[in-house]
Amino acid sequence: MLEIKDISPRVIEMQYAVRGPLVAKAAEMEKAGTKILKCNIGNPQDLGQKPLSYIRQTLALVTSPDLIEADSKAADGTSIIPDDLKKRAAEIISVTKTVGRYTESLGLEYVRKQVAAFIAARDGIPVDPAYIMLTDGASPGVKNALQAIIASEHTGIMIPVPRYPLYSATITALGGQAVGYYLDEERNWSTDIAEMERAYAEATEKGIEVKALVIINPGNPTGAVLSKETIIETIKFAEQHNLTILADEVYQTNIFGDNAFYSFAKYVHELGASDVSLISFHSGSKAVGECGLRMGYMEMRNIPRDVYDQLVKIQSVSLCSNHIGQIATGLMVTPPKPGDASFATYDREYREMQADLEAKGGLMYDGLNAIPHMKCAQIQGAMYAFPSIFLPAGKTDADYCQKLLEETGILFVPGSGFGQKPGTNHFRTTLLPPREEIEAMLEKLSAFHANYTAA
Amino acid sequence: MLEIKDISPRVIEMQYAVRGPLVAKAAEMEKAGTKILKCNIGNPQDLGQKPLSYIRQTLALVTSPDLIEADSKAADGTSIIPDDLKKRAAEIISVTKTVGRYTESLGLEYVRKQVAAFIAARDGIPVDPAYIMLTDGASPGVKNALQAIIASEHTGIMIPVPRYPLYSATITALGGQAVGYYLDEERNWSTDIAEMERAYAEATEKGIEVKALVIINPGNPTGAVLSKETIIETIKFAEQHNLTILADEVYQTNIFGDNAFYSFAKYVHELGASDVSLISFHSGSKAVGECGLRMGYMEMRNIPRDVYDQLVKIQSVSLCSNHIGQIATGLMVTPPKPGDASFATYDREYREMQADLEAKGGLMYDGLNAIPHMKCAQIQGAMYAFPSIFLPAGKTDADYCQKLLEETGILFVPGSGFGQKPGTNHFRTTLLPPREEIEAMLEKLSAFHANYTAA
Repeated sequence: MLEIKDISPRVIEMQYAVRGPLVAKAAEMEKAGTKILKCNIGNPQDLGQKPLSYIRQTLALVTSPDLIEADSKAADGTSIIPDDLKKRAAEIISVTKTVGRYTESLGLEYVRKQVAAFIAARDGIPVDPAYIMLTDGASPGVKNALQAIIASEHTGIMIPVPRYPLYSATITALGGQAVGYYLDEERNWSTDIAEMERAYAEATEKGIEVKALVIINPGNPTGAVLSKETIIETIKFAEQHNLTILADEVYQTNIFGDNAFYSFAKYVHELGASDVSLISFHSGSKAVGECGLRMGYMEMRNIPRDVYDQLVKIQSVSLCSNHIGQIATGLMVTPPKPGDASFATYDREYREMQADLEAKGGLMYDGLNAIPHMKCAQIQGAMYAFPSIFLPAGKTDADYCQKLLEETGILFVPGSGFGQKPGTNHFRTTLLPPREEIEAMLEKLSAFHANYTAA
Repeated sequence: MLEIKDISPRVIEMQYAVRGPLVAKAAEMEKAGTKILKCNIGNPQDLGQKPLSYIRQTLALVTSPDLIEADSKAADGTSIIPDDLKKRAAEIISVTKTVGRYTESLGLEYVRKQVAAFIAARDGIPVDPAYIMLTDGASPGVKNALQAIIASEHTGIMIPVPRYPLYSATITALGGQAVGYYLDEERNWSTDIAEMERAYAEATEKGIEVKALVIINPGNPTGAVLSKETIIETIKFAEQHNLTILADEVYQTNIFGDNAFYSFAKYVHELGASDVSLISFHSGSKAVGECGLRMGYMEMRNIPRDVYDQLVKIQSVSLCSNHIGQIATGLMVTPPKPGDASFATYDREYREMQADLEAKGGLMYDGLNAIPHMKCAQIQGAMYAFPSIFLPAGKTDADYCQKLLEETGILFVPGSGFGQKPGTNHFRTTLLPPREEIEAMLEKLSAFHANYTAA
């Protein structure tokens, strides 16, 4: 019998709080009939966000091409699917034949060219489709890069604190060293080069060879959006210490107010930092809310050919990312244009989706800050709030979140799951429930919080 | 700059010949205009196999539910999609809401129950849906299990020689020890317990802690199908040495002639071997030819709860397998039944698919054995032939396959990519090209082979 003592210690040590024990507890409560408000995970459509019709309709036709005909035979002359999408589906089928085949390891060249054109247009820089790899969401790309870079237990990877736990979990699984640099909560969770220098120096002193730097922009769980200037300083920092930059940019279209997204690729190019290796990640899970399709890509820049071959080899052992997700990635980066029959619907759906998220961000920010002993930084982007909660001595955010779940059915992730400064406590909530549910949630939370902090 | 000297030695050492340098060479030749016959990879639809309509039609409706309506409005009263599939699609949507959301880490309970019922019916044994995990094809399941079991560089995993290189590549990547046991080519690549004992003893003597045993049934690349008796002996061997069995059963429906498939789950249950941990893998890539959907599952049996929690945690870091692939897995295990409107088409398509593969197996077996200095064992199942080729001294199958590619455009994988007895040479070809292309290929191969062995 396989026993727990047989299991890899790296696996046992690995923590992934977004789906941790609290989530298992919530699942049990749900089975027993309690209504759970799942604010633990960025899963927009699970909480009612609607998919963009042009993506789904095109995917359906590509999956079962006989439906192109079916939709053209309506008795009343109307058809459900706009003609331009039927044309696109036919074009995709002519290129790839069938979604039932493995593609090449990197993914369909047709889609990689679409992605390259998208990045080129977004950033005004040259992009090589050969250095795009299509992945099942962003996570496998991140794991691929870390698997290549973590060469021994001395390899250090700089990661923000707090951060999405994929990074710490994967570094633990691969036996490397996570080198945390703190984000500055007082300045809206900003990224500070002096703090990076501190973390780097401290790790180096311990004999850790720091090889890469993870940046999450917009931030998860923080919601912070990096300025141009910070990006430029970060690239210079990476250049000085010969660090590969891993840029997690999966929330690049979830930007609120006057904030703007700037990519690392753009400034690595514009600075002429051709000695800085950069791997950037994007996904459709958040940009178009299609978590379940597992769609995404990574772009490799300033990566030597022999290293590139190794990254492709890692991917090849999984053969390729899912074919439908690859096509969805192509659709994401080439939305309908004015004049297309599908444009009006797309435009309305996309604006509504974006406006709704931003409005909920505002609602959450105001609501959380109205609760005494709680303080939430500006939410500049992404889809989370990560407020500080000021707890009585001896209490932890893990305990807080567990009691909150048990008493109210609200499911957050404790700040300890993301890392935080010692002595501070937080939770992460998504901005995703419908507005009226957010309002009801804030009321329950406020009452619970008053009780808990008074105890 | 990230340089090759920075890359993990485990990654550099990892070999995956199915997508190795020869495939890159073939891709170059194809870009330059040469027609390549891709016999390197089990990718049925890439070589013309048709998808099963009921799977694709249901998936299309689930992806874009508005098409259920579209298909019911035809002017001539006909509809493209059978009514029972429209009903199923509506049921699936009512259960899961949208394919755009993450499911729970294990995958949809609705599908896991379908898979459990399928195994229970196939084997006449009880199956717990909680111990089914839905995966993106079989590969991520295999990696998950190996990640848990490989605890250090002393952990040994017994793998057949020859074998599908996923196993050796993953063991290398995880830093474990591959303990090879030879299959017996003289007896149609059969599995021999005495040889397993030899390999086990030899590894143990070297200080390797052998923890698990990989069985591929039907065999890849060998095409061998295990008898009941061998399965029972293998389970007893595993029991005696306290080995977890990893049973790769992805070719379970690709069985030719009088051969029959028996699962490890069935006999682990019937023997009452409740102390033998078993993880079995299945996939839709071969069973229904849907490689591109990345659909599959693993079943865990006799796994303690705390170990199970670790396996689920590993999966949770990737959130879940792709949602459409999960639904496809449910469809695979619940095909249309007599009386369903979709049954006649399904029945015809499925029979044609199966008969075609078996006929091509016969064609390949006869053709390869008609070539002097080449010998192919019986092809009892799966979708490959793995003949011995008798080469002049100093020549290798790697060289043979490269020259063959360059001279004829035929792409095989050299035997060395799967492991083989020292001094022997082989290649693996799939059975997948259309019959007339197999015939043409055999002619070219025969001429090449005569030339090569005469040189």
